[in-house]
Amino acid sequence: MKTTILIYCQDQAGIISNVTGFIHSKGGNIIYLDQHVDKEANVFFMRLQSDFEKNILDIPQFKKEFEDTLGNKYNMEWSLHLDTTMPKMSIFVSKYNHCLYDLLSRYKSGELEVDIPFIVSNHDDLSDIAEQFDVPFYHIPVSTDNKAEAENEHLRLLKEYNVDFIVLARYMQIVSKRLIDVYPNKIINIHHSFLPAFAGAKPYHAAFERGVKIIGATSHYVTEALDAGPIIEQDVTTVSHAHTIKDFIAKGRDLEKIVLSRAVKLHVQRKTMVYNNKTVIFS
Amino acid sequence: MKTTILIYCQDQAGIISNVTGFIHSKGGNIIYLDQHVDKEANVFFMRLQSDFEKNILDIPQFKKEFEDTLGNKYNMEWSLHLDTTMPKMSIFVSKYNHCLYDLLSRYKSGELEVDIPFIVSNHDDLSDIAEQFDVPFYHIPVSTDNKAEAENEHLRLLKEYNVDFIVLARYMQIVSKRLIDVYPNKIINIHHSFLPAFAGAKPYHAAFERGVKIIGATSHYVTEALDAGPIIEQDVTTVSHAHTIKDFIAKGRDLEKIVLSRAVKLHVQRKTMVYNNKTVIFS
Amino acid sequence: MKTTILIYCQDQAGIISNVTGFIHSKGGNIIYLDQHVDKEANVFFMRLQSDFEKNILDIPQFKKEFEDTLGNKYNMEWSLHLDTTMPKMSIFVSKYNHCLYDLLSRYKSGELEVDIPFIVSNHDDLSDIAEQFDVPFYHIPVSTDNKAEAENEHLRLLKEYNVDFIVLARYMQIVSKRLIDVYPNKIINIHHSFLPAFAGAKPYHAAFERGVKIIGATSHYVTEALDAGPIIEQDVTTVSHAHTIKDFIAKGRDLEKIVLSRAVKLHVQRKTMVYNNKTVIFS
Amino acid sequence: MKTTILIYCQDQAGIISNVTGFIHSKGGNIIYLDQHVDKEANVFFMRLQSDFEKNILDIPQFKKEFEDTLGNKYNMEWSLHLDTTMPKMSIFVSKYNHCLYDLLSRYKSGELEVDIPFIVSNHDDLSDIAEQFDVPFYHIPVSTDNKAEAENEHLRLLKEYNVDFIVLARYMQIVSKRLIDVYPNKIINIHHSFLPAFAGAKPYHAAFERGVKIIGATSHYVTEALDAGPIIEQDVTTVSHAHTIKDFIAKGRDLEKIVLSRAVKLHVQRKTMVYNNKTVIFS
Repeated sequence: MKTTILIYCQDQAGIISNVTGFIHSKGGNIIYLDQHVDKEANVFFMRLQSDFEKNILDIPQFKKEFEDTLGNKYNMEWSLHLDTTMPKMSIFVSKYNHCLYDLLSRYKSGELEVDIPFIVSNHDDLSDIAEQFDVPFYHIPVSTDNKAEAENEHLRLLKEYNVDFIVLARYMQIVSKRLIDVYPNKIINIHHSFLPAFAGAKPYHAAFERGVKIIGATSHYVTEALDAGPIIEQDVTTVSHAHTIKDFIAKGRDLEKIVLSRAVKLHVQRKTMVYNNKTVIFS
Repeated sequence: MKTTILIYCQDQAGIISNVTGFIHSKGGNIIYLDQHVDKEANVFFMRLQSDFEKNILDIPQFKKEFEDTLGNKYNMEWSLHLDTTMPKMSIFVSKYNHCLYDLLSRYKSGELEVDIPFIVSNHDDLSDIAEQFDVPFYHIPVSTDNKAEAENEHLRLLKEYNVDFIVLARYMQIVSKRLIDVYPNKIINIHHSFLPAFAGAKPYHAAFERGVKIIGATSHYVTEALDAGPIIEQDVTTVSHAHTIKDFIAKGRDLEKIVLSRAVKLHVQRKTMVYNNKTVIFS
Repeated sequence: MKTTILIYCQDQAGIISNVTGFIHSKGGNIIYLDQHVDKEANVFFMRLQSDFEKNILDIPQFKKEFEDTLGNKYNMEWSLHLDTTMPKMSIFVSKYNHCLYDLLSRYKSGELEVDIPFIVSNHDDLSDIAEQFDVPFYHIPVSTDNKAEAENEHLRLLKEYNVDFIVLARYMQIVSKRLIDVYPNKIINIHHSFLPAFAGAKPYHAAFERGVKIIGATSHYVTEALDAGPIIEQDVTTVSHAHTIKDFIAKGRDLEKIVLSRAVKLHVQRKTMVYNNKTVIFS
Repeated sequence: MKTTILIYCQDQAGIISNVTGFIHSKGGNIIYLDQHVDKEANVFFMRLQSDFEKNILDIPQFKKEFEDTLGNKYNMEWSLHLDTTMPKMSIFVSKYNHCLYDLLSRYKSGELEVDIPFIVSNHDDLSDIAEQFDVPFYHIPVSTDNKAEAENEHLRLLKEYNVDFIVLARYMQIVSKRLIDVYPNKIINIHHSFLPAFAGAKPYHAAFERGVKIIGATSHYVTEALDAGPIIEQDVTTVSHAHTIKDFIAKGRDLEKIVLSRAVKLHVQRKTMVYNNKTVIFS
């Protein structure tokens, strides 16, 4: 049985040897270890994958002992994940379909190891795609008047389906503090620029106006500050004076879908940790 | 004899056929033509290289006829350049040496087809490198008190040596309007970020703080607005949480020198045209 | 009405001015011109887009005059295309679905301006996807025994549906001379390596074995020589020792689908010309 | 005092916890750990940086105990390096100067933490550059007749100056088995193609001939098989039909120097390990 342990604490001497010694003493074989120390902040991060022979591991007992001996000693924030559990992911969309198509085709192919209990949209345009891929689709219009009610409906669905994290696949609405508080560092957005350049609306227009030679896309966790959350993944592509705004948008679509998918995969594989509004991305 | 003609005017029907017909009628063979139309601004750009048999071309006569028949008709801004003239380039530096080393080694190798009459610096640190490459070095300190005098000295030297364009190779001073007015779209700067992200001072620190996954460098023509002039060339490289600010700076150095050299070459080959604070970069 | 003219001939003086003059004399406005001269081979290539006011253009008459005055004079191979005609594209697949999903979602979104009359496969695995996107699917098994019959069936379908070009979207069969002869430079393949490295079977395994730090994908026109046809588009992504063959394959999938789509778009927009087993790709 | 330990052995349970426990018990603080398991080959690799308080570490005693308790137990190949020792690097060149300029300017700037006791060349062309940077230069002509003698001279110099590793900075000669045996995985070459494509002579010509859209450079350790040694670093840049062979060469120069420098730095920082003709490159 494979386990993934994520650890976050103040940097101190002996953590690695004590944690790996603990795993070893419980009959686990370490198959992957990546660690990072932020020297300025004096913070230690570790991701550790171990393999235990079948049935050898009593999870609640393991957790209790880990906390008693290591968690307390080093004042760790830590979590244990079993590779057998499949996270539940909800997708929020508006009218653009390229990210939705990309996520759903990866999901259907088994490349993206998640459950997708439902898709939510403020428009009805993409309901056909949801149907095409056999995923329930909820059309919940959002206007200045009904924002709170729409959000109630979102929260009700997310709770009902036990959703673990949310992907905003070009969802053209600002997500409120209420939702962010329920899903801290669990809402993944794709922004169509190389952040922090061109945050906010119409980044391709702004990039065109500025005459940049490279455009980008950025996937980040959503925080209250618009387009300013911890960056998970970025990529870029070249443009020239010969490209129109329409060309920027077309080139950008391919970036957006690839960058968003990479970020979603990193999240699903628990390779991301967040602190100081930045991410540690394990290899 | 090879000539390069750059044309800029309002877009109108028949320009290409009339210009190419003119070249043809004068015994020239077109060896390269690249054109661009900005449809929003309705502006036409063209770069045209022609080959004339030896001695066939009477330059002043050619210029006069071109202006009389085409320049006037289409209300063109145009210029003719002979591939035999070598532009004079001055380099301004402060303390960082990587861009200077890169430019000078390309210059010595004959890769960069320019004359470099002198290097100017507000510090003495890099005088050894200038000496090593046999290029005159002027140490002109700049302080808040003597800014105007220093600039007088710059202008005097630039005039004396008949300098065509200036390269700021990590020159850590803001260039004043006076100099820019004398060298409009002829001062090339390298900024150590992916502009417009992180304009101003300490971009690597700002990039680190923001937690970006990609850093960049931008070469642009200097205008009065800080780090906001027409972009000539940009490039990027990936970074991760494991990189410190020192690592950002080290990785950035390689970007800066390559991006700056590319921009300088494009300028020297007269492949750049500027309008609306943007560049057209011919292929 | 927009027209695209592609020209290919020996390089000679005056071509550009004569062709652009001709367009101008017929009332056309040139909206794009890109040309290339291969100096070693002394060959001239041009792509020219012109805009004619509605109804002004008598196509057969235009073609006749163009041929009489220019085509003959310069011994050109040339073709005229109207932007109103939508090319018919057939997709051949086997069992991998990522390229098919990508092409079909671009097709459904209107991003890929083609008709797709049918999909052919030697396996039945992807028939669901065809159905999902409402495109006819023909399952034509191919074995060593029935290769000729299968090909007869392919040719029959291609003829019946009037197919203009074929996309091999990870079709794991070698296409025979017979099909290539009917579709010269009109069969687009995606090979999952950075050609010419790792031509042939199992390129990711070979790349892993060699310990490369970068993997690639290559889209090319199919010729009789395996994986050796004219290259249309290539792209790469970094890998490391930490990646397994399975990781190479997963990273490669994203490359393959993007590179294939770009090549297909270039072909559809008539931006590709082929000579000497190489391509000219217009901007 | 900082130490770097490199470990290579068969994969077994408990290695990490035992090694880190050992460091901890000796008063060391682990500041960096990166490990890799090749599951197919069942081999374990680790790079471990530790910080010991001043004077606490008795190196010979540490080494003896490490070997007695861990080295023997796990049958490790391992090595200990102190960050205070500066490796001695010799550069071999022919006539191309771009890599030499790049290495020497990084060396002079203190960016490359090595000693360079001398430069060797089979031609005299670059002696000026050596002089310019104050590095001894030995001109040792190589012909079919004197190959053995020239090599004797190389070996004599390398021994005399106690050289640790060799950089072939576009040295256009094949290095013999004799030299390779003395410097196994310690001779770094830069090949001007994206290996394994275009191994051997004139790779840019071959790339041009094949019509590739991307060219590359590869830095690798030299083995007896030509251009087939373990790859350390690769990078690429785009090209098009519009580029001539001369353009390929010019664009390639920038790749070559950057890729070679990166490889040299990785080697100097002891971030490379070699097995099965491949490299593990630590982060």
